[in-house]
Amino acid sequence: MAALRAPDCTLVIFGAAGDLTKRLLIPALYDLERAGRLGAKFKVLGVDHNSCSQEDFRQAQTRFIAQLAADTTSEFEPGKLDSAVWGRLRQRLSYLAGDFEDAATYRALSERLQAMDAGPDRAAIFYCATAPRFFAEAAGQLAKAGLAQETPRGFRRLIIEKPFGHDFASAVALNRRLLKGWREDQVFRIDHFLGKETVQNIMVTRFANGLFEPIWSRAHIDHVQITACESVDVEGRGRFYDQTGALRDMVPNHMFQLLAMTAMEPPNSFEADDVLAEKAKLLDAVRRQTPAEAASNGVRAQYRAGKVGGRKVRDYRREPDVAADSDTETFVALKLCIDNWRWAGVPFYIRTGKALGARSTQVVVRFKQAPHVLFRQAKGRPTCNDLVLQIQPDEGLTLAFDAKTPGPQMDLSPVQMTFRYADAFKAPPGVGYETLLYDCMLGDRTLFQGARTIELGWRAVQPFLDAWARGNGELETYRAGSTGPRAADALLARDGRAWRSLS
Amino acid sequence: MAALRAPDCTLVIFGAAGDLTKRLLIPALYDLERAGRLGAKFKVLGVDHNSCSQEDFRQAQTRFIAQLAADTTSEFEPGKLDSAVWGRLRQRLSYLAGDFEDAATYRALSERLQAMDAGPDRAAIFYCATAPRFFAEAAGQLAKAGLAQETPRGFRRLIIEKPFGHDFASAVALNRRLLKGWREDQVFRIDHFLGKETVQNIMVTRFANGLFEPIWSRAHIDHVQITACESVDVEGRGRFYDQTGALRDMVPNHMFQLLAMTAMEPPNSFEADDVLAEKAKLLDAVRRQTPAEAASNGVRAQYRAGKVGGRKVRDYRREPDVAADSDTETFVALKLCIDNWRWAGVPFYIRTGKALGARSTQVVVRFKQAPHVLFRQAKGRPTCNDLVLQIQPDEGLTLAFDAKTPGPQMDLSPVQMTFRYADAFKAPPGVGYETLLYDCMLGDRTLFQGARTIELGWRAVQPFLDAWARGNGELETYRAGSTGPRAADALLARDGRAWRSLS
Repeated sequence: MAALRAPDCTLVIFGAAGDLTKRLLIPALYDLERAGRLGAKFKVLGVDHNSCSQEDFRQAQTRFIAQLAADTTSEFEPGKLDSAVWGRLRQRLSYLAGDFEDAATYRALSERLQAMDAGPDRAAIFYCATAPRFFAEAAGQLAKAGLAQETPRGFRRLIIEKPFGHDFASAVALNRRLLKGWREDQVFRIDHFLGKETVQNIMVTRFANGLFEPIWSRAHIDHVQITACESVDVEGRGRFYDQTGALRDMVPNHMFQLLAMTAMEPPNSFEADDVLAEKAKLLDAVRRQTPAEAASNGVRAQYRAGKVGGRKVRDYRREPDVAADSDTETFVALKLCIDNWRWAGVPFYIRTGKALGARSTQVVVRFKQAPHVLFRQAKGRPTCNDLVLQIQPDEGLTLAFDAKTPGPQMDLSPVQMTFRYADAFKAPPGVGYETLLYDCMLGDRTLFQGARTIELGWRAVQPFLDAWARGNGELETYRAGSTGPRAADALLARDGRAWRSLS
Repeated sequence: MAALRAPDCTLVIFGAAGDLTKRLLIPALYDLERAGRLGAKFKVLGVDHNSCSQEDFRQAQTRFIAQLAADTTSEFEPGKLDSAVWGRLRQRLSYLAGDFEDAATYRALSERLQAMDAGPDRAAIFYCATAPRFFAEAAGQLAKAGLAQETPRGFRRLIIEKPFGHDFASAVALNRRLLKGWREDQVFRIDHFLGKETVQNIMVTRFANGLFEPIWSRAHIDHVQITACESVDVEGRGRFYDQTGALRDMVPNHMFQLLAMTAMEPPNSFEADDVLAEKAKLLDAVRRQTPAEAASNGVRAQYRAGKVGGRKVRDYRREPDVAADSDTETFVALKLCIDNWRWAGVPFYIRTGKALGARSTQVVVRFKQAPHVLFRQAKGRPTCNDLVLQIQPDEGLTLAFDAKTPGPQMDLSPVQMTFRYADAFKAPPGVGYETLLYDCMLGDRTLFQGARTIELGWRAVQPFLDAWARGNGELETYRAGSTGPRAADALLARDGRAWRSLS
């Protein structure tokens, strides 16, 4: 990374004693410090309920990051912590104890910020690494304490992370509360999916290359599949998950980001406002299905006991903190239509689920078949050309096409060519939050969600939530370790199509 | 290969004592025999000047093929000859001594064919593996002896191999003489390039895939480069080469086949007539340049002493049997235009030469750049997307495109994805003539040249021959082992373009 220091500021973390702070935020700041990207006067001020001295907070974070560096399975790369880098970051850490709902906390915070030497005009970012129920509360209290008030050089920004509501109405309500004390351009809503290189690369693939955009429409594309399959089960997060389900957890946020990147019109620039406007325009064009349509175009399912890669997985309803009669879906497949000029008549199929046989996040753009006429006598008819944008694992791009089978006859064989991101680039190590934190310091909202895209995302899935709440659309089951319920295959089969197999 | 026996026939080889017979024809027949593709009564009758007994002929061929099989650098694969297969082929060989210009030879030949038990109606293929000056002579003598006369089941076919004339007029004259005694559909003109899987694969890539054809036109393609670079020098063939030169040796035949496959319209079928008609239509659309245009759009050059991969190469003019003041070109680069709806305004650049730094035959389809507007601030502007159809070595397909450079900025890096034919298929071993001989036995002319495509090829290069004959267009030089003369780079540079580097 070519070093470009972010402007000085204080990062105030609500929930400083929590998991997100130690597992992702502090490691990401470490990576930024190592890359020389933090402002010289950058500071971190942790806020949480527990009383804890500054030294104790520093020691706790030192312990965590050392553990993480020693864990070879973590995405935090160093392997061995650079103690000079950590030393520099460590001395930037301080702590304030306080209740998130108590106005006194924010008065104390205001005084601390006044006292801190954190660059001109005391720029600050407030990160809500807390339970979602505190987002609006903290945002409101900060504003009431005057902490949302900016000066030309002293920016004030608020970071929150999904869930942004649990349906359309609650998302609208949350935005309304946030925006009472804050301007929209001060609010940075993190969808960590957007920090992934390969998600960003979707835009580059489409718009930097002369080859793809001319065929990126209903004229040449038969349909699009967006898949985010996880092999993990609920991993002990039953309490959260059983109230949420696969649709809320994945679709209006992560999946719709992939949808928007894949399907949006070229923005005027990669500036945040331009990109967010195009994403919103695309999501606004997702057809609002009637409850009957939603019941027919949505599949929801729950996993039953099985084996994932040799590991035994119990029935979802036997997971801890999951109701024994839960009908929360752990898998969802949707057929969506985009009612605009480019995509009219091109279905977008979306599926995501847990405890599946493979872990894969990908966008498959399936092009229309070449006419058969030339290959009437060939063994093997022309297959479909798939352009596969692989997000994880093995980030890259695959193009599936037909080649001539060697031999005297004109026969066809499906083959493919692949570009693997890791082959071409030494990926910078990171936990995925580096770019997002850095962009927030720079005030670049390109990789963040906007109020409108969030509301439009919920609006598009609301018909499915409504249909299922009314008991329309049966809850299917699937075996853990399988590719999902049969109904998901049937959803495509009735259109004469099939999911690209995950491999 | 799924075995499908060719109809019985006798293959009569004129020039049976020559190089082509032993190096390519007999080995190809061996491969066909091993694959079970030869008719049960298939026979070979060698004809040449020297008197030689049948047994001597068989022994000589046995010696040659054993040598070939032992030579690990030859394209003849077996490594170890299968003596059962060879035994079966060996006993099919017989020999007839005779002068190619003497009518008595053809009378004797007729009698021998009468006497041979070579299937119904004595089907026969006459292969002119001789010096080109005998082609028309043999064709005429055969016809005069009644040997071109077919019955419904007893086909009679004639195979000749390039050069098919040495300019437009001589090509027309040769065709006229050939077609005096033979129907066009009896004449099989071999361009062994067409036997290559990857050349045939150009058609499959284009027409079996929905992805490529929609962007295969002036709307999306900036230009096309066709390259056939050899690292070998004239290899002792100075006498032939000094009279021929790179343009005659490569362009109207091999290079134009690649041109036609790449640029032709989709044929109605892959039947020979349909394919040949489309190729002819394309070659007919190659703009006939004025002598002045040809002088400006053609580059010719001769190699000077240098090193090719560590091997010393002498000055072309010091090669054996080359005139000390020769101005024969060993390298040629042309800019061609195709005046039809699809390609108007899209230049086709062609280059071929000997003693170059790399060996590579490829077609590069360069697509138009994406608009820069989105990447104004990116390091690295969008590059061109190249689709590279690699013919040899490493047959395959490469797509060069831009991806996002990992890191917080929106920067671009050129990357590529590659499909290697050898990775997907176990290539059938072979010397390249197997398919062509087999197709001739089946009567399938798809992979052969037609009279008209040959004449049209010569017509397209005639302006360059004329310009150079009149002394227009300087003879450039280039160092052996280099990428060719500077003038070839300048030919593209004046259009703001550059050759894709050979790697």
